[in-house]
Amino acid sequence: MTGPLRLRHVPIDTNREPVAYLPRHSSVCRPEDFQALAKIELRGGGTPILATLNIVDHDDMLARDEVGVSDQAFALLRLPEGTPIEIEQAPPPASLDAVHAKIRGAELSQGAIETIVADIAAMRYSRMEIAAFLVACAGFLSTGEVLNLTRAMANVGASLHWPGDIVVDKHCIGGVPGNRTSMIVVPIVAAHGLAIPKTSSRAITSPAGTADTMEVLARVDLDASEMREVVAAEGGCLIWGGHVNLSPADDILISVERPLNLDPPGQLVASILSKKLAAGVTRLVLDLPVGPSAKVRDKAGALQLRKLFEYVADQIGLAIDVGITDGTQPIGRGIGPALEARDVMQVLNGEASAPADLRERSLQLAARVLELDPALRGGSGLARARDLLESGAARRKMGRILAAQGRPPTGAVLGGLTHAIPAVADGRVSAIDCYRIARLARAAGAPFDKGAGIDLLKKVGEPVERGEPLYRLHSCLDANFRLAVAAAETDCGYRVGRAHGPEAKDA
Amino acid sequence: MTGPLRLRHVPIDTNREPVAYLPRHSSVCRPEDFQALAKIELRGGGTPILATLNIVDHDDMLARDEVGVSDQAFALLRLPEGTPIEIEQAPPPASLDAVHAKIRGAELSQGAIETIVADIAAMRYSRMEIAAFLVACAGFLSTGEVLNLTRAMANVGASLHWPGDIVVDKHCIGGVPGNRTSMIVVPIVAAHGLAIPKTSSRAITSPAGTADTMEVLARVDLDASEMREVVAAEGGCLIWGGHVNLSPADDILISVERPLNLDPPGQLVASILSKKLAAGVTRLVLDLPVGPSAKVRDKAGALQLRKLFEYVADQIGLAIDVGITDGTQPIGRGIGPALEARDVMQVLNGEASAPADLRERSLQLAARVLELDPALRGGSGLARARDLLESGAARRKMGRILAAQGRPPTGAVLGGLTHAIPAVADGRVSAIDCYRIARLARAAGAPFDKGAGIDLLKKVGEPVERGEPLYRLHSCLDANFRLAVAAAETDCGYRVGRAHGPEAKDA
Repeated sequence: MTGPLRLRHVPIDTNREPVAYLPRHSSVCRPEDFQALAKIELRGGGTPILATLNIVDHDDMLARDEVGVSDQAFALLRLPEGTPIEIEQAPPPASLDAVHAKIRGAELSQGAIETIVADIAAMRYSRMEIAAFLVACAGFLSTGEVLNLTRAMANVGASLHWPGDIVVDKHCIGGVPGNRTSMIVVPIVAAHGLAIPKTSSRAITSPAGTADTMEVLARVDLDASEMREVVAAEGGCLIWGGHVNLSPADDILISVERPLNLDPPGQLVASILSKKLAAGVTRLVLDLPVGPSAKVRDKAGALQLRKLFEYVADQIGLAIDVGITDGTQPIGRGIGPALEARDVMQVLNGEASAPADLRERSLQLAARVLELDPALRGGSGLARARDLLESGAARRKMGRILAAQGRPPTGAVLGGLTHAIPAVADGRVSAIDCYRIARLARAAGAPFDKGAGIDLLKKVGEPVERGEPLYRLHSCLDANFRLAVAAAETDCGYRVGRAHGPEAKDA
Repeated sequence: MTGPLRLRHVPIDTNREPVAYLPRHSSVCRPEDFQALAKIELRGGGTPILATLNIVDHDDMLARDEVGVSDQAFALLRLPEGTPIEIEQAPPPASLDAVHAKIRGAELSQGAIETIVADIAAMRYSRMEIAAFLVACAGFLSTGEVLNLTRAMANVGASLHWPGDIVVDKHCIGGVPGNRTSMIVVPIVAAHGLAIPKTSSRAITSPAGTADTMEVLARVDLDASEMREVVAAEGGCLIWGGHVNLSPADDILISVERPLNLDPPGQLVASILSKKLAAGVTRLVLDLPVGPSAKVRDKAGALQLRKLFEYVADQIGLAIDVGITDGTQPIGRGIGPALEARDVMQVLNGEASAPADLRERSLQLAARVLELDPALRGGSGLARARDLLESGAARRKMGRILAAQGRPPTGAVLGGLTHAIPAVADGRVSAIDCYRIARLARAAGAPFDKGAGIDLLKKVGEPVERGEPLYRLHSCLDANFRLAVAAAETDCGYRVGRAHGPEAKDA
């Protein structure tokens, strides 16, 4: 233990990695003593925290008897500036021994998994330690380990409870741009009368999460008590899960999985089902899209994943219905929050211009959710869903949910910088690369600019003439616009097949 | 591409992770656009670099049109402050696809391994990406992959060439405190007349590397041309490898392996042999200590590791002689640079007080190295080694090597804060925990304080009386001293066995 040093908040956002700063010529300790290993531990009363150490050479930034902490470390410490802080070389979290055992091929006990998850939730793991855990798990996880991981992740966060046994939900594993069915399914199901307290994520690497798109229409950063009020009044909600804290360990794991582009089946199942368990959901319809540029590439992989979902759901007492759907191209036309919200409202409003694929998929999924209602006669789910949509009941329910959640924080004007990407040949659209389209929408500014994104004008199977626009880019900022146009001109993500002969890759 | 921003050096040492800083309210871009993914790319002429993004809220630190970079990023960029810099979201290095393939269990091609190693050496991997690669490799590496990794790591750095075919070296895989045989073997072998251009590492998590201990006696941070001069004049040297840049990828991998406490056999073999290959070594004696608290725990593991070393060495044309030695307790008496240097000089000077175990082990290893000389009659290596040591030839050679390398940068006075740890019972020392003793020496201040460490007064098998000192702690700074004494009083690392009855764990 070395110290005390005086605590100072260094206003740097280190994005999920708590960082501590020591002056090179500290009057209290020698920073080099601490830098070789992973982390230092800071104690100042309350729970000690771990932080990565950076050494500051500049005299202006820190006094010689101070220790600085980044935004994230300051928030975790919850102590005022000036508090005396002791520091010491932090031993690695004890649960890392279990990670090493996993690397060597062991099956982890329930206790080992619980301590790993608790240490991760307490931010005691560095990002490289989290990466080590994830990769070790990606190698092999037994079904028992996936189950224990699901339970441990659910237990470490908050949990919600609802009156009544039937609490339904609908979830998509993601990977297909524009797939905003939740915003249509929730009002249909709530209008029917089932409880559907839906929490969603914001985009991390995609151009929009359901929470981002919903935020175009309403406030989404509700806490648990506000959420309860909305669900009590309307039977359903569509909020961001971030303030409800259902699975804090999972949020941290995801922040490493995404940049590493790592999404192994065991983690995926534990991530989704732990949140449903914590959210008090009892019956779940899971949408599992399959396509060459989606998360699940083929039917065999989808079947395996379905079985794993079913096994874990059975063990934790969650009724699940897994639907394997078409994930070969984006759903609807808009990609990006405002454009997707437009599609959703067109469907709910019953407009003739509404994208038929989004409408049909939403109805199919809503039907499966309604079939979970014992009061409904088997097989009548689809008719009931269609009726609730076509009668305007779903639209009215959505209006009430939006009003209950509150006004959105900012406007979402569609980006005024637009550019149409033309077909370079006559033919028929034969493929749209979901991954590429998502990248381009993101380059255009989505999800940070709610009005940025891509408006698809042609879908797979439609005929196109040379020069006819395939889609339109929308940006709000010039820098994003130039970046997105240049990227689309390099690879636009569309394939146009000729009537006879080989396919041509556009642009 | 966004920009240009003006380059500013932010004097923060981020320890091997290049970091870029953007002001929250940048006049040029929106930092949040860039933060979700792993890294941003900075271009300003010359080779672009990748950096982790931190966002600065403080107006004093950066102007709104600036991008700041940490010490490490500034050194990599090699551009003056004020240079216009363009930034963009960095795509993950292309070679990460191969890492994903490895995670899924694939055997990597030579080309895939080469691109991974090149990207790592260019610092294009974040620490979490390196962790992912290391853990994927820890799961399984074929002997072919280890071979390709060895070659790729050797090729990516500098390489040394020497006149003559016989260039020998002696290497220990480490893990046993006080094992400073290199500093005795090199002068013996050089006195015999073989070329032995030895590069060593500094301690990362241990209390001393050979380079740290040698630095008590001479300058060690020689570059390649200075190294060549010393070897041309004296036939041998004992320098730090850091300025010779033999395997930059390995240096980076090690900086993640150590804090993760990850040292899988394949990486270990590739790490050592790549450096020998790049250093122009043609014949190698490898010391592989086995003990319950050493790197290799049992004979079966040692045999497996020996075979892997032999296979790779054969393929790269390096003659190797692997010796499996006793690693059950520290070697010599001193742990920490100054104390270890004292032991070494006692052996070279032929002092009666010299630690016999260090002397004997050094002679055995020197003998094995000498047997690599075709001019020497088989079986006479040990006699020759003993003769060179006892005649003073090795001592004189060491004196000339020290003079050729130059004076050490600072003095190394033995730490004046001392504390003896007593036996708590009569008996016989039955075990010394290498790992614990290393931790305690490090707590005392080694290797940063050259004079800090532990002086062992009793070794395994020696009788002790209750209250008699087992070892003495030395520190230079009060904070380290208090820390080390408290830690030693919790667990001193010794076991003292009673004449009859169960063992007692001391303190």
